[in-house]
Amino acid sequence: MAKKLLGIDLGGTTVKFGILTQEGEVQEKWAIETNILENGKHIVPDIIASIKHRLELYGLSKEDFIGMGMGSPGAVDREKNTVTGAFNLNWKDTQEVGSLIEKELGIPFAIDNDANVAALGERWVGAGENNPDVVFMTLGTGVGGGIIADGNLIHGFGGAAGEIGHMIVEPENGFACTCGNNGCLETVASATGVVKVARLLAEEYEGNSHIKAAIDNGESVTSKDIFVAAESGDQFADSVVEKVGNYLGLASANISNILNPDSVVVGGGVSAAGEFLRERIEKYFMTYTFPQVRKTTKIKIAELGNDAGIIGAASLASQFAR
Amino acid sequence: MAKKLLGIDLGGTTVKFGILTQEGEVQEKWAIETNILENGKHIVPDIIASIKHRLELYGLSKEDFIGMGMGSPGAVDREKNTVTGAFNLNWKDTQEVGSLIEKELGIPFAIDNDANVAALGERWVGAGENNPDVVFMTLGTGVGGGIIADGNLIHGFGGAAGEIGHMIVEPENGFACTCGNNGCLETVASATGVVKVARLLAEEYEGNSHIKAAIDNGESVTSKDIFVAAESGDQFADSVVEKVGNYLGLASANISNILNPDSVVVGGGVSAAGEFLRERIEKYFMTYTFPQVRKTTKIKIAELGNDAGIIGAASLASQFAR
Repeated sequence: MAKKLLGIDLGGTTVKFGILTQEGEVQEKWAIETNILENGKHIVPDIIASIKHRLELYGLSKEDFIGMGMGSPGAVDREKNTVTGAFNLNWKDTQEVGSLIEKELGIPFAIDNDANVAALGERWVGAGENNPDVVFMTLGTGVGGGIIADGNLIHGFGGAAGEIGHMIVEPENGFACTCGNNGCLETVASATGVVKVARLLAEEYEGNSHIKAAIDNGESVTSKDIFVAAESGDQFADSVVEKVGNYLGLASANISNILNPDSVVVGGGVSAAGEFLRERIEKYFMTYTFPQVRKTTKIKIAELGNDAGIIGAASLASQFAR
Repeated sequence: MAKKLLGIDLGGTTVKFGILTQEGEVQEKWAIETNILENGKHIVPDIIASIKHRLELYGLSKEDFIGMGMGSPGAVDREKNTVTGAFNLNWKDTQEVGSLIEKELGIPFAIDNDANVAALGERWVGAGENNPDVVFMTLGTGVGGGIIADGNLIHGFGGAAGEIGHMIVEPENGFACTCGNNGCLETVASATGVVKVARLLAEEYEGNSHIKAAIDNGESVTSKDIFVAAESGDQFADSVVEKVGNYLGLASANISNILNPDSVVVGGGVSAAGEFLRERIEKYFMTYTFPQVRKTTKIKIAELGNDAGIIGAASLASQFAR
């Protein structure tokens, strides 16, 4: 029997697991709740217990695996297989992760940042079609990303590469970002960023719009509400999507003007707007790219949804095949 | 005797040659004029003749070389070792380059784009200090660049990676670029771009400045004049450097926010302004980067000058050492 890969996607609410073939096909998947109580001290033991239980259930042993990989929030040390400052897990201090899991399960372990891992997944069997040059951006609570260039995931000198959300798209008069800067992509293209753009545009919009009315009335409006309204013909909501598309098109174009990837793959909750959002990004991408890039780099919507994490994590383990 | 590398830097005015050690030390260098007459048909034969002559002069033969590399303008095919559309060489159609040189000299040959090759040079033994993550930008007649990420020169899907000059830094009301877009970095940070910025700012400047006076009188003003005046305290010229520094800082920051290189190395004629320019770029780089990148990525001035081309070209030949 061909050996398998194990992928672990560690998140603040759930830990997702997958058993995959070496070709990236998910054969089994399951999830457990993330228990962040007591400084997250149960997380690693829970992961170990869950894997042990499932391997027994499926009649598998460590010999059936090439290795396992994990995507984690926080700052990941890929040499020591540790995680630091993953605040949504209550992991403030450095946590031993890989050493414990490896010791208990006897399977080689690799780890990387969650956005990087999702990028690897989408690149491998998702919209990236296993091309050596793929850029992934995820539009959710924040805006994150991962860059695969010439076949390698790019970490950078300080390990901070791929932070697409902190590209500056509004150098003057931008919204304040959690990073301390102003005008980051995240402030205008995350789920909350889209709403911020709507609030700003609402100040000057004078036509009829139930979205503008809701904003002016202080009702809760989500980025999804805005995209749904725009698709149904609400002109104000459409102007918000246009503005957000402009920012995303500019960021995608500037990334592509320097990296010329096969594709920029857009994922995350906001990307649920699908083709409606993609077209809008592409319109501005075409405006801001120079001809050779315009002809060769594509804007795509992510295909793997929540599975990107376990698939990308599993792909980290491919390195142990050699 | 340890084997050597041969580097060729093909330009529109001269072809530069270098014989280097495997550690990147230039042992011999020379140059010939580039004869672009008759559709540039003499260029490759001239290169072959010059190398043959020099090898004889130095008592060297093909056995003394690991390989040779070349940097060329135009679109380079790295598989076929050909060059297309190098208009400053009068090479409109595809030219056989590597096959002819290899056949005549019997030394393995590799080729890449001139800006990429200069980036490799600066990264290897110049300001990049052989770090695996280095971004090079060259400010000259145009603005070009090259990106080394995770140890690899990034070419991208369509071979157009590294075109830093076509990043958009002024999405609205930017100057027209030769690429057909508006607001590219090249339009405000190349030698002519700096002058364009000066002309625009001159319209609104009301103080005394001999640079502004020269512009208003229709006299010829160069980017060098502007930097020299700014350093001598001309307030108007200083405002031009400030604006150019802002654009370069924004571009460097956005590159670094996604790639987090060890350094962004600034070369080319405009970079002769040295520390005066570097400080100005760094000021805005610090403004536009997020904390992890601000702490780890450095802005540096290139160190190799004209030798970057032959050194980077020679480094291409290192691949034949295996």
